[in-house]
Amino acid sequence: MYQDLKQACYEANMQLPKLGLVLFTFGNASVVDRQNRVFAIKPSGVPYETLRPEDIVIVDFANHIVEGTKRPSSDTKTHAVLYSHWEEIGGIVHTHSTYATAWAQTQLDIPILGTTHADHLTVDVPCVPPMSDQLIQGDYEHQTGWQIINEFQQRALSPAEVEMVLVGNHAPFTWGKTVDKAVYNSAVLEEIARMAYLSCTLRPGVPRLKDALIRKHYERKHGANSYYGQ
Amino acid sequence: MYQDLKQACYEANMQLPKLGLVLFTFGNASVVDRQNRVFAIKPSGVPYETLRPEDIVIVDFANHIVEGTKRPSSDTKTHAVLYSHWEEIGGIVHTHSTYATAWAQTQLDIPILGTTHADHLTVDVPCVPPMSDQLIQGDYEHQTGWQIINEFQQRALSPAEVEMVLVGNHAPFTWGKTVDKAVYNSAVLEEIARMAYLSCTLRPGVPRLKDALIRKHYERKHGANSYYGQ
Amino acid sequence: MYQDLKQACYEANMQLPKLGLVLFTFGNASVVDRQNRVFAIKPSGVPYETLRPEDIVIVDFANHIVEGTKRPSSDTKTHAVLYSHWEEIGGIVHTHSTYATAWAQTQLDIPILGTTHADHLTVDVPCVPPMSDQLIQGDYEHQTGWQIINEFQQRALSPAEVEMVLVGNHAPFTWGKTVDKAVYNSAVLEEIARMAYLSCTLRPGVPRLKDALIRKHYERKHGANSYYGQ
Amino acid sequence: MYQDLKQACYEANMQLPKLGLVLFTFGNASVVDRQNRVFAIKPSGVPYETLRPEDIVIVDFANHIVEGTKRPSSDTKTHAVLYSHWEEIGGIVHTHSTYATAWAQTQLDIPILGTTHADHLTVDVPCVPPMSDQLIQGDYEHQTGWQIINEFQQRALSPAEVEMVLVGNHAPFTWGKTVDKAVYNSAVLEEIARMAYLSCTLRPGVPRLKDALIRKHYERKHGANSYYGQ
Repeated sequence: MYQDLKQACYEANMQLPKLGLVLFTFGNASVVDRQNRVFAIKPSGVPYETLRPEDIVIVDFANHIVEGTKRPSSDTKTHAVLYSHWEEIGGIVHTHSTYATAWAQTQLDIPILGTTHADHLTVDVPCVPPMSDQLIQGDYEHQTGWQIINEFQQRALSPAEVEMVLVGNHAPFTWGKTVDKAVYNSAVLEEIARMAYLSCTLRPGVPRLKDALIRKHYERKHGANSYYGQ
Repeated sequence: MYQDLKQACYEANMQLPKLGLVLFTFGNASVVDRQNRVFAIKPSGVPYETLRPEDIVIVDFANHIVEGTKRPSSDTKTHAVLYSHWEEIGGIVHTHSTYATAWAQTQLDIPILGTTHADHLTVDVPCVPPMSDQLIQGDYEHQTGWQIINEFQQRALSPAEVEMVLVGNHAPFTWGKTVDKAVYNSAVLEEIARMAYLSCTLRPGVPRLKDALIRKHYERKHGANSYYGQ
Repeated sequence: MYQDLKQACYEANMQLPKLGLVLFTFGNASVVDRQNRVFAIKPSGVPYETLRPEDIVIVDFANHIVEGTKRPSSDTKTHAVLYSHWEEIGGIVHTHSTYATAWAQTQLDIPILGTTHADHLTVDVPCVPPMSDQLIQGDYEHQTGWQIINEFQQRALSPAEVEMVLVGNHAPFTWGKTVDKAVYNSAVLEEIARMAYLSCTLRPGVPRLKDALIRKHYERKHGANSYYGQ
Repeated sequence: MYQDLKQACYEANMQLPKLGLVLFTFGNASVVDRQNRVFAIKPSGVPYETLRPEDIVIVDFANHIVEGTKRPSSDTKTHAVLYSHWEEIGGIVHTHSTYATAWAQTQLDIPILGTTHADHLTVDVPCVPPMSDQLIQGDYEHQTGWQIINEFQQRALSPAEVEMVLVGNHAPFTWGKTVDKAVYNSAVLEEIARMAYLSCTLRPGVPRLKDALIRKHYERKHGANSYYGQ
């Protein structure tokens, strides 16, 4: 029934090793079907080399398997929370890409240092602090979704404008209107993380990008009079 | 009409992902036709995987599209200013290559530390400071071109001798008599930036190359009695 | 006679250059046959490009060659000690992979900083201090095995739970129930080492992962109620 | 006449880009013919993609072209000095490989920190200080050869035991009994340089490898009772 959804999810997942963002099974992409309130997600622990479209699992927002014979990704509950709370997103990608994960391990936001960053978001990439021990011992992956949402609310960030986050001591999540955009954001985040690592180790205390440049680069790509792309 | 120009521009652009200098659409190459006072440039936001010679846009020095159905690169005005002011250059390349961009984010010149650098230029790679807020809010890409030209004038640098620059908080531009030379310079700059990053983090405060070595390496390649290359 | 064992050993060895873990001949994988108390190991100094299944050497736990015309890896005695002492392991891999070896050269444990690490082991990756000069001058590779075993005993670590170690000033060893798991662990260790390098140089003194997260990630993969993988 | 010599030189040169040791034309390999007191060397400025065996130039120890229509590498005089002074070497390789060159730019020796290093040489990789301004202005490439030889004499190093050097502010040279060994040493040096960079930035002031381990690893590979390799 969900042939096309599975195929789209499969193709998005297969982009991750091609872009150098995953080792072995350390990542997953999902695609939502808003009409049916279900999403397609990578099965848990299946290597990309042997992954087939029919292995993709269809899950509803309450984490019940709707279609598929394999166990869905262990991060499924995080995806479900984000889909049910953020109506504007169409796809989610989770990886342990090297530089983004190294930043997450430091529990620091990735500071906005240049236009490569500002072309995509106008704030530092937020790093969500690790949750309380009590929450960890509970429904951990479900709570991970809520930690992200709560952090965005506290910082007054919109998931339509900021399409990436670091989960402290864990790894990045990205999303977008489409899963292709979520995949794209994963690769962009890794590159932003790498450039910021280099700038910060080369010149400790390097200043953030000034506001006028942040606004300019954001607006030329996303503003009302945008003139970037076709 | 500009078939050959488009083809040359296409081929130069396709070198950039092959040399590992661009992610997605983060870069562009252009080629000038001095007789007709136009240049060919990559269209904005078109991925390299699907780029075709016929997608290349022909633009005049006043930024009017002369031929082509796509919107030219958002950096077109910067290219136009450089071509109209610097008569000796035949091609320009802009990338967000990782190490060069990381240096640009620090707003530091890349110090000349070795002969790899001195074989190509006898000064630090200049980093142009970010422009004033007023200029940013105006004709930004046009002003970027002027910022580069003004910095070269203030430092008394010749674009025929120094074929590369970092735009502070943004990314590198390179150029050359031909677009092939501009592409070559982009890859050389990235390698120089990488080596300098390593040397500076390994030995903070590492001294610059001494003058006698700078002159020697430059002259053996570029001097009247040069003996480097065929 | 040991055709299958040799083939399995050959295939495991060939994974190492494919995963980017060895340069030239700097590594070796072995597979044990518990019934016959022998193991198959890569011959010494044979490049991976020319390695054939029939080159693999069969050795018993007292380091006698049982089958094969080539000299076994110079690290054979270390493998023999580990196999004879640790009954639960089925394969061993030794490499000089870049980041893991760089950590070994510092004589520091790799601190547990994130869930990528915690998904695989709940402690810092142990670094065995270099042995005494007297032992080095004796039966060096045999003693290397004992150094590893003694360190695990002193730290009360189980080789079934911690499947990797750094030998100080030397390089990593990994193991597993199967040789495929040992190969997998080698790649995981290199990635953990790389991420920890980045986090530690970006934020010196970065705190270790808190206990609740360590336990959670370990249990979801390895615990009684594990829900990771198929 | 020197068909075989040219072919061997060609094949050695083609290994350099394959091993990731050269960008564009930044490197060269040569092979000596001791009987005829000539050597084959890469022509200057010819890209590896278009290099053919017949492009290789045959030069004698006084730098005269014996066979070939192209100009030999600009580093030819350095090779000539090394061949005429060090009778035991059969091939020389010069590259600007990234990490080795970054160390050369710091003017620091690469400290011996682990067994990867000790398996190949028992001392720090020597870095020759830049020559005096007077010598630079003279016969520069010829003097580079003498700088290397003089440094080895002052440090009482044998080119048969230490087959690599950094020329300060420039880049590495390696050699060996055969050109294949010289190529091998170039790749080993780059890896040693990379590991030492990582260890030194991770733990500034990291101690050198202790003497007993240096001797042990060297002897098991090179000593009278060596048991490493076939």
